Amino acid sequence: MRPSLLINGLSEHTLPVADRGLAYGHGLFETIALNGSEPTAWQAHLERLKAGAKRLHIPLPDNIDQSLQQDLQTLLAPQVSPTQRQVLKITITRGCGGRGYAVDDTVPINRIVQLSEFPSYPDNPAQQGITTRLCQTRLAIAPQLAGIKHLNRLEQVLARAEWSATDIREGLVLDAEGYLMEGTMSNLFWCKNGVLYTPSLDRCGVKGIVRQRIIALAEEKNITLHTGLFTADVLQQADEVFLCNSIIAIWPVIKCIMTDQYQPEWSIGPITRDLQSLLAAEGIF
Amino acid sequence: MRPSLLINGLSEHTLPVADRGLAYGHGLFETIALNGSEPTAWQAHLERLKAGAKRLHIPLPDNIDQSLQQDLQTLLAPQVSPTQRQVLKITITRGCGGRGYAVDDTVPINRIVQLSEFPSYPDNPAQQGITTRLCQTRLAIAPQLAGIKHLNRLEQVLARAEWSATDIREGLVLDAEGYLMEGTMSNLFWCKNGVLYTPSLDRCGVKGIVRQRIIALAEEKNITLHTGLFTADVLQQADEVFLCNSIIAIWPVIKCIMTDQYQPEWSIGPITRDLQSLLAAEGIF
Repeated sequence: MRPSLLINGLSEHTLPVADRGLAYGHGLFETIALNGSEPTAWQAHLERLKAGAKRLHIPLPDNIDQSLQQDLQTLLAPQVSPTQRQVLKITITRGCGGRGYAVDDTVPINRIVQLSEFPSYPDNPAQQGITTRLCQTRLAIAPQLAGIKHLNRLEQVLARAEWSATDIREGLVLDAEGYLMEGTMSNLFWCKNGVLYTPSLDRCGVKGIVRQRIIALAEEKNITLHTGLFTADVLQQADEVFLCNSIIAIWPVIKCIMTDQYQPEWSIGPITRDLQSLLAAEGIF
Repeated sequence: MRPSLLINGLSEHTLPVADRGLAYGHGLFETIALNGSEPTAWQAHLERLKAGAKRLHIPLPDNIDQSLQQDLQTLLAPQVSPTQRQVLKITITRGCGGRGYAVDDTVPINRIVQLSEFPSYPDNPAQQGITTRLCQTRLAIAPQLAGIKHLNRLEQVLARAEWSATDIREGLVLDAEGYLMEGTMSNLFWCKNGVLYTPSLDRCGVKGIVRQRIIALAEEKNITLHTGLFTADVLQQADEVFLCNSIIAIWPVIKCIMTDQYQPEWSIGPITRDLQSLLAAEGIF
């Protein structure tokens, strides 16, 4: 049987308890949509992985690109249909160590590559839009870790644990100073009078690959884009609001439950639809 | 052969990659000194574990105390000498999950209990005192996670990666606003005119078991103790400085390399020595 999980290129399902990813969250991950055998935005994911690894003192081998490509080939069925979609998750950890935060330079990293089913969304949130809520959990301001998709994700875990209602598909989170940052698993954009806005993520948050692509598309298509620090009340004035990540692509937001009384709603607008089309043309849908 | 590692009571060495401790750092740990078969400050460690688990939505089974006791009995040789010292590490994670931050309530936790050699310190830092440095890495202000010994430890990893000189035994870290907080693996105390001081750890840091015991001892022995927010320059005025954790007990600090020019030094004083003796009488040495 074809494996769905490789650890350092071998079919395994478990990792030593001594792994520093488990002990300290000393590692990174990437979540990539696969269309047939084609990983979406492969180069962008690899570049983010490398940039994050550098910041976390995780020495990637020179041949990491080839190793990951090889892993993908091993995991993929040879005749995968181009319409079949799967999720590829890559996790890189600083490898196995003893007790203590200091790293032994000679210890190799651990490379975990995993294929899983693409989630099914029968209610078609990309078309219908979603209801969100505003979370109480705040993101700490931590410029040293900001932007990186690292394995220290307790803030997201706590934010996501705030609700269980299945009709609420995502939660928006603020930073410790009350500025809008992102969703628990997605990045946030909104539009007002034809201008696109997204929070700057230099103090906390994850700089998503689709967010990055939307920022580039805005420039290509001459859509003015402002990144900065904004409080949640700007959303009330927005014409369109949407969330994005590598698996959902773009989900329009039609409502945000901020308090019992204050629950702004939005229509799904032309900029959101245009960006969905532009991304879909690149295999991001 | 007697196992040195138990996962959920069984002799294993590896954990499924799907464990949420690895994926998100959704877990906690305790590091406990064992004197012979006697775990030091067992109840205090258990209480901290339970309090942290509650804050991280990790449902501990009602019989967690007995399970951990049973694990310890399984790991310990029946005739362990009372003078043999070992380190017991307990890690509890939120168990195995699929992709996504939401938790399936029915998933059991994972319980990892590990016995390892007590570190040897041939230079006897508890007697001789140690040299420390001031780290550049700052602790983010995150009251929701403050005090908990959770598995999101990238800040400690980054702080510890700042130096490699073996004669520097620990680094002091400030919070994002520049207040003294702790060591990378230890808590910080200092004395001035017979008064003991330690940083308040309600915004970041780990509330150590030995720190907690020293705070209680100060009260028992009528030593005035101030907890609060202090900038690093207060250390310059201190009469004595020391660090503590469950394995090192108390290490006096005789020097801190703050900058190339500014490297205050201290003598090892009577309050440090008294506290070392009081703790040693409780098996903490």
